[in-house]
Amino acid sequence: MIAEIISTGDEILLGDIVDTNSAFLCAGLTRENIRVSGIQTVLDDVEEISRALIRAAERADICILTGGLGPTADDLTPAACARACGKPLVLNPLALSSMTSYMKEKGYALGPENEKQAMLPSPAEVMVNQWGTAPGFYLPIGKCLCFFLPGVPGEMKPMFETCVLPRIRALVLERGGKRQKIHRFTVFGFGESGSARLVKDFPDRFPDICLGFRAAFPCVELRLMAAHDNPGLARAKKLIQERFGKNIVSEQGLSMEAQVGKLLEQKGQTLALAESCTGGLVSNWLTNVPGSSGYFLLGAVTYANQAKESVLGVSPATLETHGAVHEQTALEMALGAKKAAKAHWGLSTTGIAGPGGGTEQKPVGTVCIGLAGPDGLALSVRHEFHFADRFQNKQMFAASALDLLRKNLLS
Amino acid sequence: MIAEIISTGDEILLGDIVDTNSAFLCAGLTRENIRVSGIQTVLDDVEEISRALIRAAERADICILTGGLGPTADDLTPAACARACGKPLVLNPLALSSMTSYMKEKGYALGPENEKQAMLPSPAEVMVNQWGTAPGFYLPIGKCLCFFLPGVPGEMKPMFETCVLPRIRALVLERGGKRQKIHRFTVFGFGESGSARLVKDFPDRFPDICLGFRAAFPCVELRLMAAHDNPGLARAKKLIQERFGKNIVSEQGLSMEAQVGKLLEQKGQTLALAESCTGGLVSNWLTNVPGSSGYFLLGAVTYANQAKESVLGVSPATLETHGAVHEQTALEMALGAKKAAKAHWGLSTTGIAGPGGGTEQKPVGTVCIGLAGPDGLALSVRHEFHFADRFQNKQMFAASALDLLRKNLLS
Repeated sequence: MIAEIISTGDEILLGDIVDTNSAFLCAGLTRENIRVSGIQTVLDDVEEISRALIRAAERADICILTGGLGPTADDLTPAACARACGKPLVLNPLALSSMTSYMKEKGYALGPENEKQAMLPSPAEVMVNQWGTAPGFYLPIGKCLCFFLPGVPGEMKPMFETCVLPRIRALVLERGGKRQKIHRFTVFGFGESGSARLVKDFPDRFPDICLGFRAAFPCVELRLMAAHDNPGLARAKKLIQERFGKNIVSEQGLSMEAQVGKLLEQKGQTLALAESCTGGLVSNWLTNVPGSSGYFLLGAVTYANQAKESVLGVSPATLETHGAVHEQTALEMALGAKKAAKAHWGLSTTGIAGPGGGTEQKPVGTVCIGLAGPDGLALSVRHEFHFADRFQNKQMFAASALDLLRKNLLS
Repeated sequence: MIAEIISTGDEILLGDIVDTNSAFLCAGLTRENIRVSGIQTVLDDVEEISRALIRAAERADICILTGGLGPTADDLTPAACARACGKPLVLNPLALSSMTSYMKEKGYALGPENEKQAMLPSPAEVMVNQWGTAPGFYLPIGKCLCFFLPGVPGEMKPMFETCVLPRIRALVLERGGKRQKIHRFTVFGFGESGSARLVKDFPDRFPDICLGFRAAFPCVELRLMAAHDNPGLARAKKLIQERFGKNIVSEQGLSMEAQVGKLLEQKGQTLALAESCTGGLVSNWLTNVPGSSGYFLLGAVTYANQAKESVLGVSPATLETHGAVHEQTALEMALGAKKAAKAHWGLSTTGIAGPGGGTEQKPVGTVCIGLAGPDGLALSVRHEFHFADRFQNKQMFAASALDLLRKNLLS
């Protein structure tokens, strides 16, 4: 089975956004053992979109197009689709009623510009969008089954999972394909190439199991994919476990923060954070996990030294002698956070995310992490990373802190 | 002038990497006021690449292709280019000598697999690669000037800047092109459709100015694009200003947090945050802006009531009487953060991001925002949003809080 992807949107071609939708779709289709043979990114223009559709339909079994389903004048996908398949646009009652009930639930009224979104090519089947107003739809163009999804990632992704995938799987079975099984490992501490190097011999040992890597910076997702009845899968999993050991964050593909939350929940323990260089990123990650209020008590983002002293009780002498970025400061921050929130664990970060602020002794990329825990546990570590970028440094610092906590929660 | 981009690489179509090269090239070309009309992403296959080249050459003045210049068997770009322009591959002496001197400098010897990289289509002009081994090249296919760059971003980007851009600028002048001008507005408080509705009459009033919208949730980016000497541009800008008024966050396309940071910096004032439902997101956004340590003193993520009392000094009676999600609590949190950090401004959020925790009086999506400022300013507001999603609620709450501060910084 061959798939093609079409991405619409002037904002992509203006370079305003990176087309992460297509990468998401490629990865999702690859997991289903479907080969993506091309991506076309086209302007918001009826002629261009319709030409891209016709080209994709000639070459592929499946086509997924994202974008252009919105209410504004530059949302032209239904019109382009109608032109490509030579059918008229008609008001689709299901599309209209699903939009009406979505809007009603949110307390908004349907405007006339929304009605345009329910004008779909006549043979289209609607895919109800529970995450936004724009209904999706699908229809065959020639022998190619074409799916149309909104461009907003927060709507596109769940619609792909819940509406598109089941239909694609049915198509695969219909055409005599085999169900695939996938195991996902979240790994931290190696980059993508470092991870690949650790299991260089894998393809020779398990030629019929597909090993894939995906950078989910600063973690790496490693996946094993094979026919669901492949007899080598258990041995292959064991090999991964042996090679990566404690660097495996999750064997269910959970994120670092979800895994840490799960461990805290299991132990019935609580956490307080003291963040300097990560600036709230650790708190933000943790609180993205529903239910985090059960174990996350306090996050103190103490950018200023004065705040480190007054909120966390870091000693002025420590700051005077060692400065803000030091193991001792990190330790006192962690102890201070634990104490202030009466939590089981206190975790801290202090470092230099850049681009400015580095010195020879403490270059940009330096981070000190402190951890205070039950039974008087108190430790701190120092790392030096070499990313040029402020965001990457923040992410690496935050994940390193959570990883230190994770490992101590395991022991 | 019209440009097309071709991206090669199985790793993109497998979903292993996101194609950031194309976004970089689109942004770079847009800055030169060159319109990118399409991106084709194709498999590492001579036939596919050559077909994509021919298609691009028919439609565009400029084509930039990345990837496939390396030494391995799946690097097929020179062969595909030779096929597309009907010329033979010949050993290019400049390509070979530039590789030899690069390798020598790094202490490596040239292998036979490297020699393949110097086999280029006969009329190609070499672009010396100072950042890696693969030489770039360019040649015309029909009327289209085609540039070939390595796929590694660390080589591609500097080569684009130093080798491609000067040649493109020369071409633009040669063909008497007209520069384009783009104005970007960041708007908060309307969705994409709400924004579009406000300027529905724009296309009729300014038929030769292109108006575009981009959801940068929870903000919307609105952009005007026209020839730089379009006489209507000033009036069009004025119309946008009148219609959106105070909802315009930035006229330079800055993000909400960057704009708030800029205003604080201009005033020489400082900020402390008390976040409950936003869980560190406001802190994280603010600290993504380089230089934020100059005005951002403290962020207290007080998920637990006990932390609200001990860290921020919220009165137990307030929490008892009104609960955590209330205007009075938000107000005391803001005042507490301001006081704890000795900042000019204290800003707070407390609400229910969901999915759980909502009640009839305070449904999921409710947020109270408190603001304490100079000269005894102290206020709090309550909003109710209707997003199903925890992330969207957090983002909307965080942006609403920053927007309240922004408006008060302006007045």
